[in-house]
Amino acid sequence: MGIVGEFCSLDKKPLVEPRVFFQISSGVYIISSKKGAKYNGMVASSLIQISSNPAKMAVSLHKDSLTHEFIQESKIFSVSVLSIDTPKKFIMLFGFRSGKTYDKFKEIQYKIGSSGAPIVLENTIGYLECRVVNSIDCEIHTVFVGEVTDAELLSTDRPMTFAYYADALKGRVPTTAPIFACGC
Amino acid sequence: MGIVGEFCSLDKKPLVEPRVFFQISSGVYIISSKKGAKYNGMVASSLIQISSNPAKMAVSLHKDSLTHEFIQESKIFSVSVLSIDTPKKFIMLFGFRSGKTYDKFKEIQYKIGSSGAPIVLENTIGYLECRVVNSIDCEIHTVFVGEVTDAELLSTDRPMTFAYYADALKGRVPTTAPIFACGC
Repeated sequence: MGIVGEFCSLDKKPLVEPRVFFQISSGVYIISSKKGAKYNGMVASSLIQISSNPAKMAVSLHKDSLTHEFIQESKIFSVSVLSIDTPKKFIMLFGFRSGKTYDKFKEIQYKIGSSGAPIVLENTIGYLECRVVNSIDCEIHTVFVGEVTDAELLSTDRPMTFAYYADALKGRVPTTAPIFACGC
Repeated sequence: MGIVGEFCSLDKKPLVEPRVFFQISSGVYIISSKKGAKYNGMVASSLIQISSNPAKMAVSLHKDSLTHEFIQESKIFSVSVLSIDTPKKFIMLFGFRSGKTYDKFKEIQYKIGSSGAPIVLENTIGYLECRVVNSIDCEIHTVFVGEVTDAELLSTDRPMTFAYYADALKGRVPTTAPIFACGC
């Protein structure tokens, strides 16, 4: 795939068999947050539920991302679960453009949740709102642990999986992602 | 599903819309560890890759589980990625029986990895070995962060997903799991 050269040229060649990591199942989400009156969101795949009572989520984000900066500041974030029918172009908008130079929210449907975090509604089948209760420094990434404060189901359509994004949509992964680029 | 009553009777009724959590994609894995000469493993679904250089995984396990105790002691664990063709009975063995009263390794295929951790090979399409480098206390669960020290691809078959386990196999979830039981 197209990402291979880009991925390997950055001295990020994995020391262990990378194909096993492609067997780890995950979804495709937009993580959004705010800083003052500014909103931003980014695509993330490394998200799981880690407890049920109270419900908590863990998400890994690159430290250089604007969303990471916003979450550190506001301590809140939302998770928009993308539909399997989400156009690749929409994922690319949130996954490959930086909010530092482009307002991703200016042309998409969103609302402000009960937590104050922006929530992307376009192509979204459900969302969670989280308040950060812990975090782990993982060198170039931070794992934020968020307690879920609100959630709403918007559709019973199937969610986009990372496997579908990579295999069917031939989707790429930025070199800053916590997961390995496909095919490398 | 059958789990509903069991789940809700334990005062674990979620405060937020639980159906959104079923939209979070995940796989089905066996997490194994050791304590001295004893081996144990358990089914887990809350596992993600959180960084790629070095490669690290995060997994959430209930504090009462024997595998949790073994990982805290030995600081190592393996992740066996289960095939989509894994029999439900096999998943039930590792997911619903406790190693405190039953030796789960006595009748299954496994090997000892380079880390010293046991690795379940039956129904496994690939595995990772991890050394614990961090952990987060999440009340009744612990999230272990493991740096991947070894990995091997055993098959290119598709992995079991939690959605397939719940929907196609009508699989249940123990009340101690970090994820919500399906259908509640």
